[in-house]
Amino acid sequence: MKGISSTIHHHVPVALRPATNRFPKIHAQHQQLAIDTTHPTPDPTRTNRASRFAESLSNLLHHGETHAQKILQPSNWNLHFDEDKYNTPAMSPKEDISDAWREIHGCHDWHNLLDPLHPWLRREIVKYGEFAQATYDAFDFDSFSEYCGSCRYSRDRLFEKLGLTKHGYTVSKYIYAMSHMDVPQWLERSSRLGETWSKDSNWMGFVAVSDDEESRRIGRRDIVVAWRGTVAPSEWYEDMQRKLEPIGHGEAKVEHGFLNIYTAKSDATRYNKSSASEQVMEEVKRLVEMYKGRGEEVSLTITGHSLGGALALLNAYEAAASIPGLPVSVVSFGAPRVGNIAFRDEICTMGVKTLRVVLKQDVVPRMPGIVFNESLQMFDDFTGTLDWVYTHVGAELKLDSQSSPYLKRKIDLLGFHMLETYLHLVDGFLSSSSTFRSDARRDVALVNKSCDMLVDELRFPPCWYQMEHKGLVRNAHGRWVKPKRDPEDIPSPSMEEAHTHVKEVRGSHERLEPLLSV
Amino acid sequence: MKGISSTIHHHVPVALRPATNRFPKIHAQHQQLAIDTTHPTPDPTRTNRASRFAESLSNLLHHGETHAQKILQPSNWNLHFDEDKYNTPAMSPKEDISDAWREIHGCHDWHNLLDPLHPWLRREIVKYGEFAQATYDAFDFDSFSEYCGSCRYSRDRLFEKLGLTKHGYTVSKYIYAMSHMDVPQWLERSSRLGETWSKDSNWMGFVAVSDDEESRRIGRRDIVVAWRGTVAPSEWYEDMQRKLEPIGHGEAKVEHGFLNIYTAKSDATRYNKSSASEQVMEEVKRLVEMYKGRGEEVSLTITGHSLGGALALLNAYEAAASIPGLPVSVVSFGAPRVGNIAFRDEICTMGVKTLRVVLKQDVVPRMPGIVFNESLQMFDDFTGTLDWVYTHVGAELKLDSQSSPYLKRKIDLLGFHMLETYLHLVDGFLSSSSTFRSDARRDVALVNKSCDMLVDELRFPPCWYQMEHKGLVRNAHGRWVKPKRDPEDIPSPSMEEAHTHVKEVRGSHERLEPLLSV
Repeated sequence: MKGISSTIHHHVPVALRPATNRFPKIHAQHQQLAIDTTHPTPDPTRTNRASRFAESLSNLLHHGETHAQKILQPSNWNLHFDEDKYNTPAMSPKEDISDAWREIHGCHDWHNLLDPLHPWLRREIVKYGEFAQATYDAFDFDSFSEYCGSCRYSRDRLFEKLGLTKHGYTVSKYIYAMSHMDVPQWLERSSRLGETWSKDSNWMGFVAVSDDEESRRIGRRDIVVAWRGTVAPSEWYEDMQRKLEPIGHGEAKVEHGFLNIYTAKSDATRYNKSSASEQVMEEVKRLVEMYKGRGEEVSLTITGHSLGGALALLNAYEAAASIPGLPVSVVSFGAPRVGNIAFRDEICTMGVKTLRVVLKQDVVPRMPGIVFNESLQMFDDFTGTLDWVYTHVGAELKLDSQSSPYLKRKIDLLGFHMLETYLHLVDGFLSSSSTFRSDARRDVALVNKSCDMLVDELRFPPCWYQMEHKGLVRNAHGRWVKPKRDPEDIPSPSMEEAHTHVKEVRGSHERLEPLLSV
Repeated sequence: MKGISSTIHHHVPVALRPATNRFPKIHAQHQQLAIDTTHPTPDPTRTNRASRFAESLSNLLHHGETHAQKILQPSNWNLHFDEDKYNTPAMSPKEDISDAWREIHGCHDWHNLLDPLHPWLRREIVKYGEFAQATYDAFDFDSFSEYCGSCRYSRDRLFEKLGLTKHGYTVSKYIYAMSHMDVPQWLERSSRLGETWSKDSNWMGFVAVSDDEESRRIGRRDIVVAWRGTVAPSEWYEDMQRKLEPIGHGEAKVEHGFLNIYTAKSDATRYNKSSASEQVMEEVKRLVEMYKGRGEEVSLTITGHSLGGALALLNAYEAAASIPGLPVSVVSFGAPRVGNIAFRDEICTMGVKTLRVVLKQDVVPRMPGIVFNESLQMFDDFTGTLDWVYTHVGAELKLDSQSSPYLKRKIDLLGFHMLETYLHLVDGFLSSSSTFRSDARRDVALVNKSCDMLVDELRFPPCWYQMEHKGLVRNAHGRWVKPKRDPEDIPSPSMEEAHTHVKEVRGSHERLEPLLSV
C-alpha cells in the first residue's frame, strides 16, 4: 500500500524523476511544440502555411520528428486566429493504444505520464471529460419547463445530439438521484411551478460502453459512468455540511451530502425506487458479466466534474468492493475532497486508480476546507483546521489558466470552475514548465459556452450555449408554443412509464387554477 | 386651428360625449365582451366549448349580436389557459375598412373611436405597432457581431423572417442614422471590438407600402414608415439633454437629441452621406408620386416606439410641410415629449394626426420632465418646472397594465415600457371602464420576448427571444463558427455597396493583431 500511495502526488520536478519514460520519442517532440511567445510578429503568408503546418504536425506526431524546427517558425504559431482555423479537425488524431491501455488507465498511477503529459493519455482524459460535459449540455435547467431536471434527449440520441458519436461509445442506461430531503438545496432545481418532469428525481448521469471499433483501439471493453455535477461555486456553500459519515466496515468516512445523493431512495418516487448507487451498480455488473462472459477484457472508468467527481469516487469505491478483479479508474475534474485519510487509504488498497484534474485557480478542489463568501468575492480559508479531516485521493494533473493565450487574464471564479475551461487547458497542456500546445485541436469556442473566459479578440460571445427562443416554436397559427417532448425524448427507466407520464403531464393542464382572481 | 386642437385630448367621460358614434352596433357588442371576473369557477367541459366560443365570437363581431349573453357564461372566459389556446388564430379578423379609412386614419382625431376602442381601429393600431416591433426583432444587438447595428435580414426577407407577411405590406427602403458625435451614448451600440458592420451608422427603420390586396381592404395605398427606438428606460437618462432647438420657420422648437439623430449626416460615412431625414423623405416622395401618378389615393402612416415615436413626429412634421395634400398620421407607442407648444400647434395646423398610445405605468411618455434614478428605482418628477417647455401632441389612447389578467402585479419599469406589453394591452383594450377583452387573439407569449411580465402560471419563460447559440453553428469539422452573412442578408442602400462591404469585412480579419503578447 505504501508503494502505491507514494506515487500518488506528482509535484516532483521532472528532472528529479527516474528515467522510466515509456514513450521517449513522442515526449521529445511535444516538448518542442510549445508555443514561442517571444516573436509574435504576424506573417501575411501564414494562412496557407498554417494548414500545411497543421497537417505536418499531425504526420509528425504519428511518424517521426523530422522538420520540427523548420515548421516551428514564429510565423506559424498563430494558427487559431486566422480564417483557416475553422477548417481544421477539432479532435486530436486517434492512436491505437491497445498495447498500453493499462498504463493509460492508471495501473501505475500514471507515473511519468502526467508531466509532461503523454498525448495518448491527454486524448483519453479529454474523451472522458466530454462525457462528463454531456451531463451538463443535455440537462434541462429551465425552471419553466415541465421537464426541468430531466435529460433533454433519450439515451439513444444523447451522443448524436451532442456530437459525441465520434468517441465510439453507446449509452446503456441513465442514472437518477433523488432531489429532496437531505439533498442540498441547489440540487432541487425544480420548476417554479411544481409541474415538473419529476418532483422527486433529477437526471444525474449515464452508463455507456465502448463499441467494437473503439474497444479494439483501446485494447478492452470500456464501461464508462459519467456523473453530473453542479455549476456555480457558490452553490457549493449550501452543500458543504462538513459532516463525515462512515462508509464500509473500517475507519473510512465520507461527506454526508455526497453519500446521501448517491444512496437516497424512496418507494414513493417514480425514478428512485432504487438509489443512484443501486441503479449504476446493477448496470455495471450486468455489462461486466456480459462482456466477461464473452471472454473480453473489461475496464470501468468513472468520470465527473465538481460534485460529479465526488460521486465518481463513491461509485468507484463501491464498484471495487463489489466486483473483484475489475480495473477501476476515476478521472475527475475540479472535484472537492470527499472523505478522510482512512477512506483514501482504503480506496487505494482496493486498487482504484484516481486521476484528479485540477485547475490551480479553481477553488472547488480546495473544498471542504474553504468557505466561499459570494458577496465579498473573497475566500476564508480554514484548511488548517479541517485538512486533517478531508483529504484528496489519487494522482493529480495540475492545470494553470495562465498557460492559455486564449483565456482572459482576470479572476473569474465561475469560469475557473467550468469543465469546458478544464478541457481546453488539458488539450493545451504539455508540461508544467511549458506554454500552451500549439497543435491543440479542441474547439476553443467551447470555453465560452457558459462563461466569459475567451479573450475578446476571438469574437466569441460569452455564454453562447442557449436554445433558440428558449425552446418556443411558432406553430401554424403563428402562436409561440412549447412543443411537447416526443415520447422517445423523455428519458425514463422504461418506455411504458414514459407514456404514462406524458398522459399525466397533459392532464395536469386541466387542473390549472383560474387566474383572474390575482 | 382652435377647432382642431380642442378635439385632441380624450379625457372626457364617455357619457358626456356627443352621440356621434359612427359604429354603434359593434360598440354595443364589445362592451358586453368584457371579462366577467366575478365567477372564476372553472368548468371541466370548457375545452370543447371554448373553441366553439372563439368561433362564435368571431361570427358575432362580423354579423350580429345574437346569443351574446348565452355565450358569455363565466365558464368560458378562461379560454387562454387550456390546451386549445394553441390552436386558435393569433390575429383578429380582417374587415373591409375601405369606406371608413379616413376616420380610422384619424381625419377627425379619432373622436369617439378610442373609448371604447373601435375594433377596426384596434386592429390597425396593432398592425402599425408590429411594424415598429419589427425594428427591434431584426436589429443586431450583438456587440460581438461584426454586423452589430445592422438589420439581420435584407429588406426583401424582413417580413417573411418575422412572420409579418400577413399584413400585406412590402418593404421598399431601409433607413440609417449616424451613430456618433452628438448622438446619445446609448445609440452607439458598437461592437466591443470596433470591427462592426458600420462604425458610422445604425439601422433605424424602414419604409413599406401596402400591396394591392391590402390597399383594396384599407381603401388607399398606405405608405408606412417605422422608426426604431431604444429599449431600456434607463438609457433615456443619457439622452435627455433637455435642450430645445428651433425647427421650421416659426416659434416651434424640439429636443436637440432627437433632431440630431434625424438630421445628422457626413460625407465620410458609407450609409449616412444623406441623413435619415433625407433618406426617408426621398423614398416617401418617390412612392407618393408613383401611386398618385396612377390615380390612387395615398396615405402616409408613421409609427415608432419610444425614441422611434419621437422620430416619427419629426418625420411627420417634415412630410406634412413638404408634401401638401397628403394625409399624414402618426401612431406612436410610449413616446416621450418632443417639442414645445408652438411645435404642437404648428404640427396640428399642418393637419398631421397623432395617436399617442400610452401605458399609465410607463415613465418614458413623461419625459423629458422626469429624472430616472436607476440605482434607487425612484423618480424625481420636476414636471412642474419643465412642463411649460415640452408638451405632448395629439390624441391619446391610455392603457393600464392592471387591466390584463396575464400580466404580473409588480412594478417592472422595463416591462412597462416594452412595445410588446403595449401591443398586448391594445389587443385586450375595450374601454377605460372595462376589463380585458375575452376574445383578444394576439399571442400572449410575445409579451415575454424581452422581459418577465407574464404570470408564472402561463409557463412562458422570461426574455425568451434569443438566437440559438447566439448565432454560432457547428461546421463539418465539429467547430463552432459564426457563419458569414449572405450578401442578400446584408442590408444596404445598394447591392453593389453590400458586396464591397463584404470584401472589406473579410479583409479586416487579416489585420487582427497577434494575441499571445497578452
